[in-house]
Amino acid sequence: MGPKRIHNFNAGPAALPRAVLEEIQSEFLDFKGSGMSITEVSHRSKWFDEVINDAIERTRRLLNLSSRYQVLFLQGGASMQFCMIPMNFLADGRTADYVNTGTWSTKAIKEARIQGKTVQVPASSEDRNFAYIPRKIQFSKDAVYAHITSNNTIKGTQWDAFPDTGQVPLIADMSSDIFSRPFDVEQFGLFYAGAQKNMGPAGVCMVVIRDDMLDLIPGNLPTMLKYSTFAEKNSMFNTPPCFAVYTVQLVLKWLEETIGGLEKMAAINQRKADLIYGFIDNSRFYNGTADPDSRSLMNVTFRLPNEDLEKKFVADALVNDLGGLKGHRSVGGCRASIYNPTPLQAVEALVDFMRHFESQNG
Amino acid sequence: MGPKRIHNFNAGPAALPRAVLEEIQSEFLDFKGSGMSITEVSHRSKWFDEVINDAIERTRRLLNLSSRYQVLFLQGGASMQFCMIPMNFLADGRTADYVNTGTWSTKAIKEARIQGKTVQVPASSEDRNFAYIPRKIQFSKDAVYAHITSNNTIKGTQWDAFPDTGQVPLIADMSSDIFSRPFDVEQFGLFYAGAQKNMGPAGVCMVVIRDDMLDLIPGNLPTMLKYSTFAEKNSMFNTPPCFAVYTVQLVLKWLEETIGGLEKMAAINQRKADLIYGFIDNSRFYNGTADPDSRSLMNVTFRLPNEDLEKKFVADALVNDLGGLKGHRSVGGCRASIYNPTPLQAVEALVDFMRHFESQNG
Repeated sequence: MGPKRIHNFNAGPAALPRAVLEEIQSEFLDFKGSGMSITEVSHRSKWFDEVINDAIERTRRLLNLSSRYQVLFLQGGASMQFCMIPMNFLADGRTADYVNTGTWSTKAIKEARIQGKTVQVPASSEDRNFAYIPRKIQFSKDAVYAHITSNNTIKGTQWDAFPDTGQVPLIADMSSDIFSRPFDVEQFGLFYAGAQKNMGPAGVCMVVIRDDMLDLIPGNLPTMLKYSTFAEKNSMFNTPPCFAVYTVQLVLKWLEETIGGLEKMAAINQRKADLIYGFIDNSRFYNGTADPDSRSLMNVTFRLPNEDLEKKFVADALVNDLGGLKGHRSVGGCRASIYNPTPLQAVEALVDFMRHFESQNG
Repeated sequence: MGPKRIHNFNAGPAALPRAVLEEIQSEFLDFKGSGMSITEVSHRSKWFDEVINDAIERTRRLLNLSSRYQVLFLQGGASMQFCMIPMNFLADGRTADYVNTGTWSTKAIKEARIQGKTVQVPASSEDRNFAYIPRKIQFSKDAVYAHITSNNTIKGTQWDAFPDTGQVPLIADMSSDIFSRPFDVEQFGLFYAGAQKNMGPAGVCMVVIRDDMLDLIPGNLPTMLKYSTFAEKNSMFNTPPCFAVYTVQLVLKWLEETIGGLEKMAAINQRKADLIYGFIDNSRFYNGTADPDSRSLMNVTFRLPNEDLEKKFVADALVNDLGGLKGHRSVGGCRASIYNPTPLQAVEALVDFMRHFESQNG
């Protein structure tokens, strides 16, 4: 009998491809004939060098990065980036634009202001509980950068196209949709993503940075808080989170070699989202919470007629091996996170369950 | 045939107990019947709650912590602590003492000074290439804290007893000897340890902090750089490095339940160190680099008659399944790291090899 496995709709940490988990398991006591676990090899060894460099090369290919961009691995999650971005780039007397599309954007703004930095908010969807992505935004022409959250995990919204910020570098928190679709990186000065949603386990944050951004960094920052430290040392100024980087490498390998790249991944993601949103739109029992033109392909947020039914829905789903469907504790309701590793079959099983639950409780 | 395993003398990331690796492997696709990998469960789930709380409780028992101390898990390694400690505790106009016993102490001092903090160095062993631990140190009575590195991984020295700092809280980087022996925590305001040497994989840093230290933290620090953030949220303000915390939990379980606690661990560590130092002291071929009264029980640093022989020693050892014996790139020579998870048999195998190598090349 194989291990028990459920359909996992967690918002993060989230599902990983089963083939990746099996590969980790199979070589866990002896990594590539080293006679050591990946958790036991030196980060200065040829074994780990191959891991981190393969992860970087796959990222470069998948995102079609020019030589102007560097791929870095940091710790502390996206929350640490909220602090590092203004610290590294926003000198006294300069300003940055932050579009506020939900909880994580709000936190990013807060962490800049805590440091006494000047931040403008040219657009916000707070007026309708962040149910939409603002359009036609007037960005400041003299901002050092413009910051957005590409996908809003909690509110279930996503930028379908990125805003034009002219000459101002765009910075994006892509924690919950990186590698879910192709996009043009050229207008980005930096983008970052905690791994634990679309590309790995918790404990590592990918940062992709353009060379001109490195020139903005002041000299007197603590070493571990400067992007240049990571850029100069291939993310190994000190010991990196080796196991998390290794898992990311395997997920990117799966994305390239099993899925076939970002175009194919995007088509699968679209199909998964169409299936569940199509079902919700044809139901009077389930109600999506995001505006249809702002819906996330990653996090499907919806409500049932009342909170008791929502509780029952989440509990009954788990009995049927469908896990992680509770909405974020700050907003309630239900949420199905359908990141890259979530297969179409899981979404089909969820929709079948939703139909059955409605017929029993509607 | 089982997996290939070598004797691993890496300085960090380093060997883990085989039983821990096997437990991780066995439940990697289905953690405790959840139907998910430990890398896939939510950090807000009952599964992860049990992991992190068990790790904390075991730490409390093993170190005999009073209720004044909190156990935190942070990211960024000890290097991030070098920055956070002065940032959190050292207000303008105040000073701290740092004893300089090697590479990591030097870095800790540098990270305080980068921030414009005032740091005194009441003692240093730099005059003899950090081959010893300074004695009879005059600490400042009005310092906010006094900082030491309890074990010097690169130079192979270790404080056998901690210095008396009177009313001044002691802070220690214990990255390479935490949990290797019992010690009295009462004079410590804080101690910290990157996990990847004595207690787990890379990617998590344990911080044990006394309640009065929390009162020193200024309000205007970025959220992720304040110890109070982690203290108030049981280290889960944002997603913690779940897999690394889980591995630490299993190592601490092994330490309590298989080894039997810190007294027993210390006796085993002493026996391992006596074996290899005893052999070195009886040899004219191998020469220990640390003063005998300052020797580390964790990192045994030694030289051979010349660098060619050192290269051959490291290469021949690996052929004999003894890995990780090269000294740190900054100092050269050889080093055997014999942390908690390294069994006595591994040290016996190493000494046998050293004897054989001497007989062939001496």
